[in-house]
Order: sequence, then structure tokens, then C-alpha cells
Amino acid sequence: MKKPLRIGMIGCGFMGRAHSNAYNRVGNFFDQAYVPQLTAVCSRNAAATQAFADAWGYQSIETDWRALIGRADIDAIDICVPNNLHREIAIAAAEAGKMVLCEKPLAIDAADGLAMCEAVERAGVANMVWYNYRRVPAVTLAKRLIEEGRLGRIFHYRANFLQDWTIAEDLPQGGTALWRLDSAAAGSGVTGDLLAHCIDTALWLNGPIRDVTAMTETFIKQRVHSHSGEVQPVTIDDACAFLCHFGNGSLGVFESTRYARGHKALYTLEINGESASIRWDLHDLHRLEYFDHSDEGRLRGWRSINVSDHGGEHPYMDKWWVPGLQIGYEHSFVHQVADFIEGLSTGQPAAPTFRDALQTQRVCDAVLGSAESGRWADVQPSEA
Amino acid sequence: MKKPLRIGMIGCGFMGRAHSNAYNRVGNFFDQAYVPQLTAVCSRNAAATQAFADAWGYQSIETDWRALIGRADIDAIDICVPNNLHREIAIAAAEAGKMVLCEKPLAIDAADGLAMCEAVERAGVANMVWYNYRRVPAVTLAKRLIEEGRLGRIFHYRANFLQDWTIAEDLPQGGTALWRLDSAAAGSGVTGDLLAHCIDTALWLNGPIRDVTAMTETFIKQRVHSHSGEVQPVTIDDACAFLCHFGNGSLGVFESTRYARGHKALYTLEINGESASIRWDLHDLHRLEYFDHSDEGRLRGWRSINVSDHGGEHPYMDKWWVPGLQIGYEHSFVHQVADFIEGLSTGQPAAPTFRDALQTQRVCDAVLGSAESGRWADVQPSEA
Amino acid sequence: MKKPLRIGMIGCGFMGRAHSNAYNRVGNFFDQAYVPQLTAVCSRNAAATQAFADAWGYQSIETDWRALIGRADIDAIDICVPNNLHREIAIAAAEAGKMVLCEKPLAIDAADGLAMCEAVERAGVANMVWYNYRRVPAVTLAKRLIEEGRLGRIFHYRANFLQDWTIAEDLPQGGTALWRLDSAAAGSGVTGDLLAHCIDTALWLNGPIRDVTAMTETFIKQRVHSHSGEVQPVTIDDACAFLCHFGNGSLGVFESTRYARGHKALYTLEINGESASIRWDLHDLHRLEYFDHSDEGRLRGWRSINVSDHGGEHPYMDKWWVPGLQIGYEHSFVHQVADFIEGLSTGQPAAPTFRDALQTQRVCDAVLGSAESGRWADVQPSEA
Amino acid sequence: MKKPLRIGMIGCGFMGRAHSNAYNRVGNFFDQAYVPQLTAVCSRNAAATQAFADAWGYQSIETDWRALIGRADIDAIDICVPNNLHREIAIAAAEAGKMVLCEKPLAIDAADGLAMCEAVERAGVANMVWYNYRRVPAVTLAKRLIEEGRLGRIFHYRANFLQDWTIAEDLPQGGTALWRLDSAAAGSGVTGDLLAHCIDTALWLNGPIRDVTAMTETFIKQRVHSHSGEVQPVTIDDACAFLCHFGNGSLGVFESTRYARGHKALYTLEINGESASIRWDLHDLHRLEYFDHSDEGRLRGWRSINVSDHGGEHPYMDKWWVPGLQIGYEHSFVHQVADFIEGLSTGQPAAPTFRDALQTQRVCDAVLGSAESGRWADVQPSEA
Repeated sequence: MKKPLRIGMIGCGFMGRAHSNAYNRVGNFFDQAYVPQLTAVCSRNAAATQAFADAWGYQSIETDWRALIGRADIDAIDICVPNNLHREIAIAAAEAGKMVLCEKPLAIDAADGLAMCEAVERAGVANMVWYNYRRVPAVTLAKRLIEEGRLGRIFHYRANFLQDWTIAEDLPQGGTALWRLDSAAAGSGVTGDLLAHCIDTALWLNGPIRDVTAMTETFIKQRVHSHSGEVQPVTIDDACAFLCHFGNGSLGVFESTRYARGHKALYTLEINGESASIRWDLHDLHRLEYFDHSDEGRLRGWRSINVSDHGGEHPYMDKWWVPGLQIGYEHSFVHQVADFIEGLSTGQPAAPTFRDALQTQRVCDAVLGSAESGRWADVQPSEA
Repeated sequence: MKKPLRIGMIGCGFMGRAHSNAYNRVGNFFDQAYVPQLTAVCSRNAAATQAFADAWGYQSIETDWRALIGRADIDAIDICVPNNLHREIAIAAAEAGKMVLCEKPLAIDAADGLAMCEAVERAGVANMVWYNYRRVPAVTLAKRLIEEGRLGRIFHYRANFLQDWTIAEDLPQGGTALWRLDSAAAGSGVTGDLLAHCIDTALWLNGPIRDVTAMTETFIKQRVHSHSGEVQPVTIDDACAFLCHFGNGSLGVFESTRYARGHKALYTLEINGESASIRWDLHDLHRLEYFDHSDEGRLRGWRSINVSDHGGEHPYMDKWWVPGLQIGYEHSFVHQVADFIEGLSTGQPAAPTFRDALQTQRVCDAVLGSAESGRWADVQPSEA
Repeated sequence: MKKPLRIGMIGCGFMGRAHSNAYNRVGNFFDQAYVPQLTAVCSRNAAATQAFADAWGYQSIETDWRALIGRADIDAIDICVPNNLHREIAIAAAEAGKMVLCEKPLAIDAADGLAMCEAVERAGVANMVWYNYRRVPAVTLAKRLIEEGRLGRIFHYRANFLQDWTIAEDLPQGGTALWRLDSAAAGSGVTGDLLAHCIDTALWLNGPIRDVTAMTETFIKQRVHSHSGEVQPVTIDDACAFLCHFGNGSLGVFESTRYARGHKALYTLEINGESASIRWDLHDLHRLEYFDHSDEGRLRGWRSINVSDHGGEHPYMDKWWVPGLQIGYEHSFVHQVADFIEGLSTGQPAAPTFRDALQTQRVCDAVLGSAESGRWADVQPSEA
Repeated sequence: MKKPLRIGMIGCGFMGRAHSNAYNRVGNFFDQAYVPQLTAVCSRNAAATQAFADAWGYQSIETDWRALIGRADIDAIDICVPNNLHREIAIAAAEAGKMVLCEKPLAIDAADGLAMCEAVERAGVANMVWYNYRRVPAVTLAKRLIEEGRLGRIFHYRANFLQDWTIAEDLPQGGTALWRLDSAAAGSGVTGDLLAHCIDTALWLNGPIRDVTAMTETFIKQRVHSHSGEVQPVTIDDACAFLCHFGNGSLGVFESTRYARGHKALYTLEINGESASIRWDLHDLHRLEYFDHSDEGRLRGWRSINVSDHGGEHPYMDKWWVPGLQIGYEHSFVHQVADFIEGLSTGQPAAPTFRDALQTQRVCDAVLGSAESGRWADVQPSEA
């Protein structure tokens, strides 16, 4: 008999939708011990929250997150609110004995992140951060290939996350929709929003980063703030790039921006190893490009591996459709829920845990620090 | 207050899953007057049917389709069984006053299809055939561009549907899983299975087909039959290609096969018009290639339009995620359910109706007839 | 000591340039027994011919091709004039004991082609037809892979040659520049001009074609004729498609047109075999797409083999630049000259000879015959 | 009447071939006042030099470059020898009143480069550096689009030059073939060899670079030296990446390596502007990717502009073949010779002159300096 995993969702935004969809769908495709149940959703505006609840099938609503955390019929709190609120909610939820699933980035900075780690570890509650791109099947496949040693010694890692949605000068900053442009709510700009994804994947695929030299830029210096209605300085980073050394001796080049005209969410990564290389991009997420130097010379070429092609062999793909038929962005969240549930059953927590995600925060802090100081900055090593 | 649309599903196979998923999801993304309710699913094996019901949330099961059709708590019958059963079920469902949604192809042949049309029209029940590729956003966009006259006079239409899953000689024919290799169950091979999709889209985008010359082939002449356990002649077409004239004076070239090594479900189409051309393929279904001759000469080039890029402007995409994030195959079914429901509200039936799909059947019949006779065959025109 | 191969070129058009370039360059890159020498060029207009001679380095000019053929200081006649003149010139050249290199298609039809074959064979002179695409390195690589048996049993062959340069209604037909639109000069439209290339490659890669069913169309029914200045019916085929059976049991689908908006010279071919498939297109001619079913399942994908990548291993590429650097269209002609010269040294004539090219002519005749009769047409087998 | 431009070539390596080919071909395609004449080639080994002269048609050879420079029948000296020899030869040639064409990079460092600049400017001789990629038609098209203001304010510039040819540990360093691995001959590794190309293009397209932070790496620490036969430390940079600020406020990210498995000469560049973006890569050099934000929203997409498609409108392409037919790498050199000759006729020197190329050297110096110091380094501004 399957058990319910009773979810208390905080936040009704884009990520609230993506997670709710994942909870609703996982049971149709994955046969597991727990099935998520949309018990309650919480947000400040009651009408909007009720509408969200109706659309997604939440059984109840709350308008105060403390009330949600206080409910006995909730097993897990899912935090989908601006970054500056993560710390307080996560710690309270942990202290209330709830599992905590937190949207990325874990926190405003590593100090907050560390406090959150300590809280969930002290409470002994299951915890996870939604770095969903690990579970795009092509990226998971990349991980497996690396673990199998197919790439050999790694020389290079490069990743970009390019968007273009803030080029317009009349776009305001702050408020419900645009809190990502407000450093008070977001902590940083593209560094925490976009590079954090790139860094999480990089740490997972290629190990720790030792040190960085970085550059940030704010192209549009002031914007109307949605709260005040006044023109205020923009304090986030519109763009950020950094060079780094990985612990394994490879070199990293990372870049992200919201000013790359023509790219909506172009997260690309490439790894060059002695024996093989891989490339991936989010705009065609069902494909992994793979170059294998052990192929016969005259027949060597980048292979475009469509992870829809071999359901039985590609990560997660046996759960979906027949060969050749694409899945999309949202499926990465379904996979993450499935793995979280699997972790509950096996006792092996699904990654990235808060502790894993803390390390991404430390790289972000070093990046922002280097950009400010104009010097190389060391990354604080993991305690793990 | 939203009303339920109570579904009675017949069949638990791949299409049963795809449709069930669509019913489950449409309400989360589309705010409509009706919300599908998975009332009952029917299939011969009770245990398998119950497992399917549990996975997808059906409230009850039946093992006799006549019993399902007889139930008063069902509004719509969805037919997801082999082609040779479509006629009898559809007619019985119509006579029982149920809406009928039928998997493609409509029938074994045009004669059966016509009887089905007449039954649903006589009964005045809503009806639809699941030619889902019309509702891949990039294909819907193509339709709009054509309707706006952007392509101008059409010269060429070409479409392929290439698979490679039956190359192995030891693959059996027939039975639950492999009825598509059994002409008794399927009526034909790739013609009804794959070309029917290409023809449906073509008729929709480019209008009627006048006449055809065709070629079919059965590469593997005999296979073990799953029912008899004996080696029997293969009677389906493994591959089929045809040339045709469209009513608008353009030329068509169509090909499909299950022997194209390296392609799993490569449905491609291209239309060349005087002013512009478009191309699409199912393996990268979120992209429409578009060439506009009115672009400045030196800057002309095929545009790769990612339909994820402009949520507010691309068909259906405002319902999903933020720009840059792909949707997949299954979403085409969600869109079709949404349009079916819209049709119930507006009284404008969603296409393709049985009558629309009958015309695809007639082209298939002409194709198979020409392949047999070695001569050009006329397509019976629509009565509409 | 290297010997000169004294060329007498007839024609100053596009092909005259491409061949002259090949003669000029081959000695810089291929170290062979003969080096082409541009002895004379012949065309009716003396001034234009002299300008051409100056640009390319021809030592002398003629304005009467019979005079050119009569010269003792010419070893080889290269025919680069409209198709309707091939027969007479080639036969005269052969009878004068000259080697004959003839632009494709060999002739207006198979009857003329046969007469030309018999003439060069009777005279015992070296002869070759400029089906240059055989010697694009990626296409030559395809040939080698097929010969090595890597594709296994062949199921499908498909080829397109798509252009868009005659869509404008005010383009005249006939005259020096536009003789390809004049059936009196060209014999046919796209069939002899474009499909002939596709057919030549197909016969080379996949063996004989048994029978065909075809469709032709003339979209623009009348145009001003450059000679008469009057509007006259257009008698060439603007587009042509055909289906066929190859002798090896595989199916062929071929299409060509000058009305495919967005494509300038998109010659594509794809072959699907039991073990592997290949794809190539002229717009990115340095790449061969290759899918090998023997690759590990989860890592299977179409490989994009860049023939520039492995100079030492890819056909002809050791003669050019360092890895990664593209060659282009014109190099196929250099390769063909090099192979022709090699044939002179070894006594193994470079293909396609007139006899080889005759077979392409016979397929073209069958295609045009089928298009006219509306029936399948058999291809006359080769006597070889 | 055309005048000869009498070339004295120094060096018989890869670049000697590429330049010789350009001199031989330019007159066939460009109708200009001067026609290059291959008067003499100079290299130390007389037999090898004679063989080179025979292959390319040089009228004579020299084995001492001072002798070559001393000849009265030479108009222009072309320097195709290792970087450490550029300075002495160039200055001597200038002092002898010869035009000087020098392979890139201009010199070992900016100090040498400055001395060379001063020498040619003092002598008043025509001078040029072979940064040939400016004259790939797609790159030239990019330049024109930028000059027309189509990209608007520039936010980002990124460029990579990725190779994989030195991954093998047993590859020796130094000697005739491998001087690029020897810092004594080359000055630096990928910085001067590969990044110099990227920097030259960037300065041309996007203006001056203000400051840089850089990272270099030598992955293989020691190799056998071809001269000594002994294992010696490797002193070149195997890989180099840098971040920078351009004078126009845009951000730059540059990377190059010889350890990117799967890439032979993947020079890519991308520029993101407020109104449009462009991308290009050398492995498919005939294409420019272009995204224009002014396109209608729903039809926006990256355009793949094939510069072969519109001969009359794309830079240089009217000189070559008919639409759709690719040119390759070597043509960039032909274009450069043509522009050099044009500059002789018009008095407007073809870029990049020594003075232009000096600025690239200064960026390289800053990059190498920053990599060593671990700090941001300013680039010395141009005096121009």
C-alpha cells in the first residue's frame, strides 16, 4: 500500500507551478512507496493562493507560512519564495520536524546556507535543493559517463547560462514578478540565479573548485523599483563571468548574463577529457553531444545522442514514452521528486542536499568577492 | 463552477497512457469549463486493467467494452485499441449517445471509416480522432503562417516518417504488443500507422490530394506470429512511399518506413512556397525552421524558431513555462484535449473530426491501391 | 620529369571556370606524372574567349571547335557547352584521337549517349564525365564505407536536389546564360541538370535501378525566350520526383526542383542499411553524418564526421590543409582531374566513363518516360 | 596592362603553402592592377626548397634570407617562419625597401612588434599581417553588420579557439614541425598562436580592450625536445583563458587550448548586442548565425546565413561560384592578397597593418602578464 507524502508548498510563482506539476505526475510514471499529496499551499494573497490551489488540486490554503509549518498533516515543506526568505523558513520547518525541499539557490550567501545546513542536520530531516538540471536525462547520462571513466583526465570545463530578458531599460526591478532584479530579495543577480545552476552541475560532474577570478557588470544602472515607484540604482549583477581551477587540475570558464540577445535560457556545458568530450545545452535538452577519441579515426565525429532513442538504457527514460519522443523541461522536476522519494525509501538521501548546495553557495560567494576585489579568491572547502 | 467530462477509456497500451496523461494534466494548465474525470478504464485482462487504473487514477474498471458503453456515468468513450476494433466500438458508443474520441487511424479502411462517420453524425455526438501532431506548437504555428498567406503559392510538400524498430528478423508479429505488424489487426503497416499522420497534417496544411502513385515493400517476408507461435507470411507494408498532386497544384513526396536505421520517430515535413518555406521534425519538435524570402537578401537564412522562446505569441505556449524551456511529445495530447473541451463550449468541434479523418483514410486507400495496381490512383474527394 | 596534359577547353561558362581552376591547381597539391597545361580555349565570341583565356592563363584561343579539335598540340578536349552539342563534339574529338572529358549529363538522351560511348570506345581514347560530386571527400568516404560492408543490407536510398532560382516569373528562358531553361539546348530541365547528379551518385553507391514511377511539373508555363524575345511555352521540367526499385532490393525516392524556396543547391542523400546509415548534403559538404548500430546502445547517435578532421585518413584530405580547415565545392573538380591523371598512369580509367554515365542517361529517360506515360517504366540494363 | 607583384617567400611550411596558393589563384578570380608572381622562395634546406618551388611554381630559390632580401627582382617579402625570426627579417626587408607581409602573430612580444612597426613606417613600405580570418566572408559580413549599427550597443563578446592536437604525451616539442611547442621559437603557446587570431578579430569587430584577467596552464609539464633529444620542461602555455573589458563597455570572455578533445580548429565567436546577435565558427565557416530582435516576435529565431547563397551580396562571394556552393579556408588568404593589391592601387593600406597587429600583441602581453601576476592587467593603448 502506498503512503502519502503530504506537501506544504510555500509560494505560488513559477517554481511553485513546476514543483506542483512534479508532485502531481510522479505517481503516474514512477511506482514508488510514497505518493505526493498536495495538502496545502501558502502565500500571502488568499485569493491568488486559492486560485493556485484550485488549478493544481491543493486541498487547503494558508496565508502565513508559520501556520503551514505548524500543521500536523504536513510531512514536507517546499520553499518556493525569494531567496532572502529561505533561511528563516527552512530553519523553522526543520525545527518543526518537517522535511525541507528548498528552491535554489540555497540562500542569500554561504553564511545563511551554513545555518540552514546545520538546522536540517540537527533536526535530522530529509532535505534537498532543487537544482533540477542534474536530472535532465542527458545530464545524468553525462554524469554516468564520467563516473565510468570514459572521459579520462579532464582538461576543461566550460559553462554558460545566457538569457536576454532584462535588456529593456523600462523593465522595473523588484516586486512579486521581478524580485530577481532586486538584490535585497535575490542576494545577487545572475550569479545566484543562473551561475548557481552551472556551478552545481560542475561540482557534481567535475568536483570541487579551488579558486576563481571573476568579473561582474550591471549594464543598466538604474530602474524604477516596483515597490517605491521610484528610479533607484540597480544593485544586482546583470552579467558575471569567472575563470577557475578545479581540484582535479582542469580549468573552468563560466559566464552568465541576462543580456545575450537571442538566448532565452541557453544553459550549455562542455567537458573536454583526454579520452572523450561531452556537450549539452538546455535549449535542446534531449540531446547529449559526445565525442569519443577511441572511435576509429576516419569515423570519429561528435555524436548527437538523443536520450529519447533508447528508453531502456537512458536515465529515467524507461518511465516515459516510446523511442524518439521527446520529454521536456518539467520532467527534470518529476525525476527529482522520484529520487527524493527513493531516498526516503532507501535512506540514501537524494542529492543535492543542503550540505551539497552549500558548496555552490561558497563558490558564488568567492565569485562575487573576486569581482569586487579584482583578485583571485579561494573557495572555502567543504567540510564533507 | 467547472463540470466534469467523464471519460471511459478502452485500452491500456501506449496510447491509453498518453491520453490518460493528457486528461490528468489539462486542468492544471488550461482553465476551462470542463475538467476530464477518469471514470473508468476497460481492457480484457482485469489485473492489468486495475494496475493501469491505479497508476493513472481511474475510479473503476471494466473488462467488457459493451459494459463500459452501457454505463450512465460516462460522457465520452476513448478508443485506444487496435484498428480493426475501431468501427464496432465507435458505432456502438455513438448509438449509446456517447462522445467518441478515437485513436488514429480512424479505421481499417475508408469504408469502415465512412460507417463510423455516419454513426457519429447520425447520433450527433462530439467526435475526434487523435492526430495529435497538429497540436505540436511548431506545427500549429506552421498552420497559422500558411493561413496568413506567408508562404504564397505552394510548390512542394514533402514528408517522411522514419523508424527503425522492426529491422530485427526475430521480432515476432501480432499479439498485444506487436499488433501493428499484423495486418488483420492493423489493416496496413506503415501506411496506416505512420503515413496516416503525415497525410493528416498535409491535408490540414496544404489541402486535398488529388491522385497518387505509390510503392510498398515488405522487407522481411515472414515472422513468427505471437498467437500461433508459427512462422507466417508478413502481410503488412514495412515501407511505403508515394508521389502525389495536391488540389492546389503543388507536388507531394511522402515516405515512411520502419527500416531507416538511426531514426526512431523522425517525422519531418517541409513546404516550399513562393514567398517562404517551412520545415519541421518530430525529433526536435520545439523548433520550426522558417525561410522568408522577403528578408533582406544578404541576411536571408533559415531561421530556427524555438517555440519555447515567446510564450505569449506561440500557439499554446502561454500555458506552460517561461521562455526557453522545452515541452515535449505528450503536450500535443494535452492541447488536443483542451481544444476538444473548447469545442464543447463553443460548439465549434475540434478537428480532426471523424469526417476530417475519413479523408486521410481515403488517401491511404488510394496509396495502397496504387501500390498494388502499379498505376496512379485518384483519391475519392470529400463530400464536405 | 612531369609531362604536360594539353587541354583544349570548349566553353567559357561556369563549368569552364570550374574545370580551368581544377587544371590550374591540381599540380600544386598532387604530385603526378602529368600536369595539365591550358593550351587553348574555344568559344564563339573571340573577345569573351580572350578575356577568359587571360583570366585563366590559356595560351591561345579558338572560335571554332572543329579547329580546336584539329590542333595537334591538344591532348584532351573538355566539353563545357550546352547538352545538345555534346554528341557532335565528343564524337568528332574521339575520331580525332583526343581524350574527351565531357560535362554532365553525357547527352540529351540515352541514344545520343550510346553513340558517344561507341565513338570513344571505338577510338580507344580516355574519356570521363564530370559527375564531380563523387569526389567530394565525404561522398567518397560514404562509398568506402559501403564497400567495406558497414551498412549491411540496404533498405532505403533517398536523394534530393533542391534549388530556387527559377521562381521569378520574369526570368527568361534560353540564351547563353539560361540555356538550362530551354529544352532544345538542355534536353530536359531538372532531370538532366540535377537529378542526373543524384542518379549518378546512387548508381555508384547503391547499384543499378530497375524501374521507376515519376512525376514532372512545369510550374511556370510560359516565359520570354531570350532568342526570340517572345513569350513561348516552357518545355522543360521545373520539378521531377520519382520512386524506384534498386537491383539490390532497396527502395529509392528522388526529388529535384528549382522551386524550393530557401535552397540554393541542396543536394542531399541518405542511405539506410541494416547496420548503419549515412547522410550527406552539399550545403555542408565537409560533413558526413553516420549512424552505426554497432555502437553501444546508450551512446548511439548520428556522428557528424568532419572530413577535415583527419587529413591522413579521409579521402583526398591529406593533400590539403591541417585538420579542421574546410575545403569547398571546387576541390571536387581538382580531385577528379587528379584521378583522371592517375587513370592515365595506371591504365585504370577514372570513373565515371562515358559508359558509366550512359546508365544515368537511361534512368533519366525512364523517369521522363514514366512521367509522360503515367506508368512504371523499366530502366534499360547496362551492357557491362 | 597588369603589373607583376614579385614575391619573395621565406619559409616552406604550412603557411608558405597557404600563401603561395593565394598568390597563384588571386589573378584567376580577381581582376586587378597587379598579379602576384612567384619569383623566389627561401628556406635553409636547398632540396626541400627546390621541391617546394617546383610544386608551387617559384621561379628560383634562395637558402639565405638576406640574399633574398638583397635581390632587386623582388617587390615584397612574405615572412612565413617561426615567430622569433619575424623581427630581424621584417626590419631588414623594410630597410631594403621591400613591402613586408608577415605571418601572425606579428612578433614574440609587443616590444619586438613595435620595433617592426617603426621600421616599416620609417621605410614607408606597404605592410600587412596575415590575420586571415577577417576575410572569411561570414566574418567580413559580421563586420559590415556591426558597422551598420545593426547590433546596437554591445554587451558581450566571446571567442574560443579549441584544438586537440597536443594531448599525446609522447609528442615532442621544438624542431621544424613542432616549433609551436617551443617557447624559444614561438614566444608563447596558444596565446600567440590561437588567441592572437581571436583578439585580432575582436579588436576589429568590437574595438579596444582595456584590461584583462587571465589564466594559463601547461598540462604536460615536460616533453622530449626535437633538437636535444632530451626530456625538457615545456615552457609554453597549453591553454589560456581571459576575461576582459572592452572600451565600449562590453565584456569579453576568451579561451583557447590544444586539449579540447574533439575540436581540430574550432574558432568560434559570438557577439550579443542590444538589437541583434551574431555567431560564427570556423568548422562551418560559410555560415553566419544571426539573430535579429527586430524580427516579428513569433518568427524570431537564429538565422543560418549561408554566405554562399547570395553571390552578389555577400563579401567576396561574387568572385567565386554559383549560389549554394561552398568555399573553404584557403579562400581567406586569396581575399587578403586581393585586398593587399587593392590597397596598393588605392593607397588605402589593407588591414591589419603592422600597427594594427601591434595592438593584438599588446593584449597578448597583458594576458600573459596577468596569468603570471594573478592580477588584472591593463592593455597599453594604441598610439593611433
